[in-house]
Amino acid sequence: MRVQGRHLRAVDWDARKQAVVWIDQNALPFRFVLRHTRDPEEVARAIETMSVRGAPTIGAAAALGLALVWQHMPAQWEKWKQRFLRTRPTAVNLFHAVAWMDAGFQAREDPVARAMAWLEREVAAHKAIGEHAAALLARAGNRILTHCNAGWLAAVDWGTALAGIYRLHAEGEQVHVWVNETRPRGQGARLTVWELAQEGIAHTLQVDAAAAALMRAGEVDAVIVGADRIARNGDVANKIGTYMLAVLAQAHGIPFYVAAPTSTMDDNCPHGEAIPIEMRAKEELCMVEGVDEEGIVQRVRISQAEHVRNPAFDVTPCALIDAIITEQGIWRPSSSCSR
Amino acid sequence: MRVQGRHLRAVDWDARKQAVVWIDQNALPFRFVLRHTRDPEEVARAIETMSVRGAPTIGAAAALGLALVWQHMPAQWEKWKQRFLRTRPTAVNLFHAVAWMDAGFQAREDPVARAMAWLEREVAAHKAIGEHAAALLARAGNRILTHCNAGWLAAVDWGTALAGIYRLHAEGEQVHVWVNETRPRGQGARLTVWELAQEGIAHTLQVDAAAAALMRAGEVDAVIVGADRIARNGDVANKIGTYMLAVLAQAHGIPFYVAAPTSTMDDNCPHGEAIPIEMRAKEELCMVEGVDEEGIVQRVRISQAEHVRNPAFDVTPCALIDAIITEQGIWRPSSSCSR
Repeated sequence: MRVQGRHLRAVDWDARKQAVVWIDQNALPFRFVLRHTRDPEEVARAIETMSVRGAPTIGAAAALGLALVWQHMPAQWEKWKQRFLRTRPTAVNLFHAVAWMDAGFQAREDPVARAMAWLEREVAAHKAIGEHAAALLARAGNRILTHCNAGWLAAVDWGTALAGIYRLHAEGEQVHVWVNETRPRGQGARLTVWELAQEGIAHTLQVDAAAAALMRAGEVDAVIVGADRIARNGDVANKIGTYMLAVLAQAHGIPFYVAAPTSTMDDNCPHGEAIPIEMRAKEELCMVEGVDEEGIVQRVRISQAEHVRNPAFDVTPCALIDAIITEQGIWRPSSSCSR
Repeated sequence: MRVQGRHLRAVDWDARKQAVVWIDQNALPFRFVLRHTRDPEEVARAIETMSVRGAPTIGAAAALGLALVWQHMPAQWEKWKQRFLRTRPTAVNLFHAVAWMDAGFQAREDPVARAMAWLEREVAAHKAIGEHAAALLARAGNRILTHCNAGWLAAVDWGTALAGIYRLHAEGEQVHVWVNETRPRGQGARLTVWELAQEGIAHTLQVDAAAAALMRAGEVDAVIVGADRIARNGDVANKIGTYMLAVLAQAHGIPFYVAAPTSTMDDNCPHGEAIPIEMRAKEELCMVEGVDEEGIVQRVRISQAEHVRNPAFDVTPCALIDAIITEQGIWRPSSSCSR
């Protein structure tokens, strides 16, 4: 998608520099910073610190990081595979991307070509998701609520939850997006608002807890979110607050959609309770980053709480999901799912 | 209640200084500041800027502010009544407190005695609410979720939602409080955490959107919140996010309680849709205040969103409320309410 009119991906291969390049998502929206590295450890740390984030972007970054390992230190392949697998526990795209690279390594393919094939497959999937999602959303209505950032920053290009919105916008449809700020890290307030503004799509920010009253007021036609892992039965792990939205959507008769590539599906996982949920540090909730009046980034403490519960994700049971939109089409888990 | 072992009220009359004294709730939890004034305009501004906040504390501050008017500029009584009535639109205690002071003014009572009678009536009500709420909560279980701050800071003394928790703690019961941070102003993260820590009550902070998954995990025995205005049919206006919790509590079979003095009831208001909901500035959501590493208060911008929807309150319909706890006892609106 576009940044000030220029086409970019969230993570990519820089052929001239022979390096991984990514948009530093911790710097957005206040600073736009492209980072380059030939050091796979820097890529792994970018995943851990959420400088790259979003399940498909994490998988793509791991694929490119392993291309660097393969080029520069192939003897340490096994060690580095484990290093990347340990970066984040919930997004399954990471595991699939590592397996994809491993198969290429064993078959002695070209490292960069192998990693880029993963990226192209993902981007093509997101474009197809956008087509399927646009058709669903067009029927539901044009006031769409989303949570976290499941746009192109999270998904290399196009996006998952936002892909359908970008598609509708490209087709000339009027769309209005309700953006949940998405505490504690504020991916909605920081990233989704930034993405939608870059594309010129109408949007309004609100606190997460305001979604319920907004639904009751009849202002929401559909909810669409991404996914970090989808179990075999259709249960979905996604950003904390997703399950809240699913319960609220059902209570208000609003369709609830999940958009994700099939690389987010975990066939080894029978249902949501088997998905490991990452618990993150309390500082993530108690400290907030922003810019002061002079535009300088500052971190401030907003709470002195000693005890904090900070799960990064929650699980939405399949029964609450009207459709899971993948590149292969539309799956309606609520009509068939079991637990 | 206690601040470092010393008994204090959220707002009070300082007899020695012949001034209104209040705890500056915008300074907490990083600085503990008592503010004094003999200028009613400063009291009105303290209400508007939320330096005093919480429906019963707002009412008490208005009563004391009008005592200053009565003492120093009785000829301007009508103008100042209107000044205080305009400070915040949703809390009805404010209107009741102004009417109480007006009746005393017309009857030529003593101004400070009249205002203090209002405070004492409120504090006695909150103590009684604590007794009724403790009985209800003891039956529900000891893992209690609350939203915003409906403790003694919001209610002169004792609190409304927290009164029952303080009572149980005083009786030697083990209680654990789940504290929603309560965006955008963070009253849970800043004030409720501070209050509970001062009283030595176990508590854990979480983001608002995490409440749903916590309920699904079976970790919540009851939800209790305060109220800013209660309509005749039992619909309740309270901090944005309250309605979210009520829907979630019902979906998970968890009792949902509202605790408030009868001064929060508005008999002129037939149902929740007639309650005016204050929309606040977008800066409240996009700017966050905290302290830096040196303990200096800083305001930082966390989002560049141009369009923000920032309602201060939402309305919970009576059908979702298992009990409204007042000083007069327990009202079960869900068994009788109509809309």
